[in-house]
Amino acid sequence: MNTVEWVEGKLRLIDQTRLPLEQQWVECATHQEVAEAIRGMKVRGAPAIGVTAAFGMALGAIAYPGSDPEGFSQHMKAVADLLRATRPTAVNLFWATEKTLAVALRSAEQGVDGTRGQLLEMAQRMAIEDVEANKRMGSYGAELLPDEGTVLTHCNAGALATVSYGTALGVIRAAVERGKRIKMFVDETRPFLQGSRLTAWELMSEGIPTTLITDSMAGHFMHRGAVDAVVVGADRIAANGDVANKIGTYSVAVLARENGIPFYVAAPTSTVDLSLASGEEIVIEERDPRELLYIGGHRIGPEGVQVANPAFDVTPHRYVTAIITENGIAREPYDEALDRLVHRQISSDT
Amino acid sequence: MNTVEWVEGKLRLIDQTRLPLEQQWVECATHQEVAEAIRGMKVRGAPAIGVTAAFGMALGAIAYPGSDPEGFSQHMKAVADLLRATRPTAVNLFWATEKTLAVALRSAEQGVDGTRGQLLEMAQRMAIEDVEANKRMGSYGAELLPDEGTVLTHCNAGALATVSYGTALGVIRAAVERGKRIKMFVDETRPFLQGSRLTAWELMSEGIPTTLITDSMAGHFMHRGAVDAVVVGADRIAANGDVANKIGTYSVAVLARENGIPFYVAAPTSTVDLSLASGEEIVIEERDPRELLYIGGHRIGPEGVQVANPAFDVTPHRYVTAIITENGIAREPYDEALDRLVHRQISSDT
Repeated sequence: MNTVEWVEGKLRLIDQTRLPLEQQWVECATHQEVAEAIRGMKVRGAPAIGVTAAFGMALGAIAYPGSDPEGFSQHMKAVADLLRATRPTAVNLFWATEKTLAVALRSAEQGVDGTRGQLLEMAQRMAIEDVEANKRMGSYGAELLPDEGTVLTHCNAGALATVSYGTALGVIRAAVERGKRIKMFVDETRPFLQGSRLTAWELMSEGIPTTLITDSMAGHFMHRGAVDAVVVGADRIAANGDVANKIGTYSVAVLARENGIPFYVAAPTSTVDLSLASGEEIVIEERDPRELLYIGGHRIGPEGVQVANPAFDVTPHRYVTAIITENGIAREPYDEALDRLVHRQISSDT
Repeated sequence: MNTVEWVEGKLRLIDQTRLPLEQQWVECATHQEVAEAIRGMKVRGAPAIGVTAAFGMALGAIAYPGSDPEGFSQHMKAVADLLRATRPTAVNLFWATEKTLAVALRSAEQGVDGTRGQLLEMAQRMAIEDVEANKRMGSYGAELLPDEGTVLTHCNAGALATVSYGTALGVIRAAVERGKRIKMFVDETRPFLQGSRLTAWELMSEGIPTTLITDSMAGHFMHRGAVDAVVVGADRIAANGDVANKIGTYSVAVLARENGIPFYVAAPTSTVDLSLASGEEIVIEERDPRELLYIGGHRIGPEGVQVANPAFDVTPHRYVTAIITENGIAREPYDEALDRLVHRQISSDT
């Protein structure tokens, strides 16, 4: 079962707003529906969003009536704009739309029909490569974990955040597959509860011992010596190794360092944005206040209260012990290490 | 309006499990009902629990049929045991039952009837002294805050955690009364949501500009330079200045120090437990897993998941910039400073 899948001419997504209580699927037949699914977080997680956007581009290409390369190019630029406007922080969205748009804009050379096929094929290849990348990441990351110990994670960087297998949870899966005895602490991850709703559910399905905690308990358990390592995913990594990830990640990283616990980030090189010198340049998405004020339709805060709801924060690279990618492990100085790992991918691409 | 009030022979409490959506009152006519209200967190906050327990002792004395001092003493010991067994961490509960039990056990001297009256009077005096202590605390604490700035708080150490005025929020109230322009960040404080349900509501009623955030956002806003000070309450303070307070306080303290922000604790000297050398000896209450798994009857976690739910954590004194009491401000070395402030109270008592 994949989080993102192409089935009979439509994109099928598991609806992550309904997990774990219901397993429902969303079918997107148009690029508009794909954009709506990303914006509404029916699909979330940087790598999953990237692949979903690539399928959105393919659906956009299919929707174009006719075979005029000029009109097709204009149309595809608009499709890319629509998809890019859904969520500003995760770079994989921009990475995927840029790669596919570049192909779309060459339609004069191979014809609009050929380009349609090429775009769909490209999206399908990205989906396959996502899983392969996660397994390679898992293989590198598993080496860093103790043979027996407790790992804490924040948010969901699991199968549900990717096409399958996961980044941070891919590292956990790989460690367990290699016989390591890993127990997990899962931060519930307010306000969207990706930890309690998605990660706890995903880990339990794998039979990995899991304890759910509130975000505010992570520090307490670290301080008590109950946590041996932290592994999280990333939505965008700047050239210097600063990491944008789910709100709360910065706090976990500071608490880990304060307690001498290694803090690992697992993310594909498509998450690395070499165009940004540091994390200060990363745009942080501000989401709807209702995410804090309601849970399952039940209001929890007073009427009229002002709410801040940044969806991400930036963890300065000095708190990051290592960044695990599909091309190997980066450590300080990150500028050099990330540049090397990203270009290793680009050269194997061409 | 007081959180805890004696009205026509009964103890009247504002039901804090229903705020802010409903303002309902609970009436306790027996010590059993008082114990149940504390256990079920209809009343919470260390100072409010202390005063409530004192009224519980008075109700227990009233319930004793007859005037045999020996039987009365046995009965009152049982009442004290019942009240003490409700919640293990906040020391004010033990402080209040101990003080009142000592009076109850002297009933042979002044007769059971006289002792009943004395216990009720004592509880009423504790209620009055609680408010006076909070105002003195506020007066000391207000001096520490900037003339204009943003203060972050965690949980509810407000009027609702005391008889009135509050400890941490008393400091905020006092600063605002003195013309300081204070804005507030309020952590929602999972799992029980004292921040969003109680503190945000209380501050809004006072017209103090308030922004509600998740616990996981506190670090992010500190790191962005948006927080000038942190003020929290306490449930128990060890002789060395280690502070037990609502789960998540330790994380806030570490993040504050990492970002060069002062971290203040406001608590009456009745919260200081000189019998404990350090915070490591403080018993941490573990509460029902359902507090994490349900919000307003809506389930948010998967079936069968294991949950940890410590209600408090311990912040080592090295993270505490100052402890604000009704007798003055304690700073490092806390052993000496707290001992001095606690004994100043005891000598003024006698």
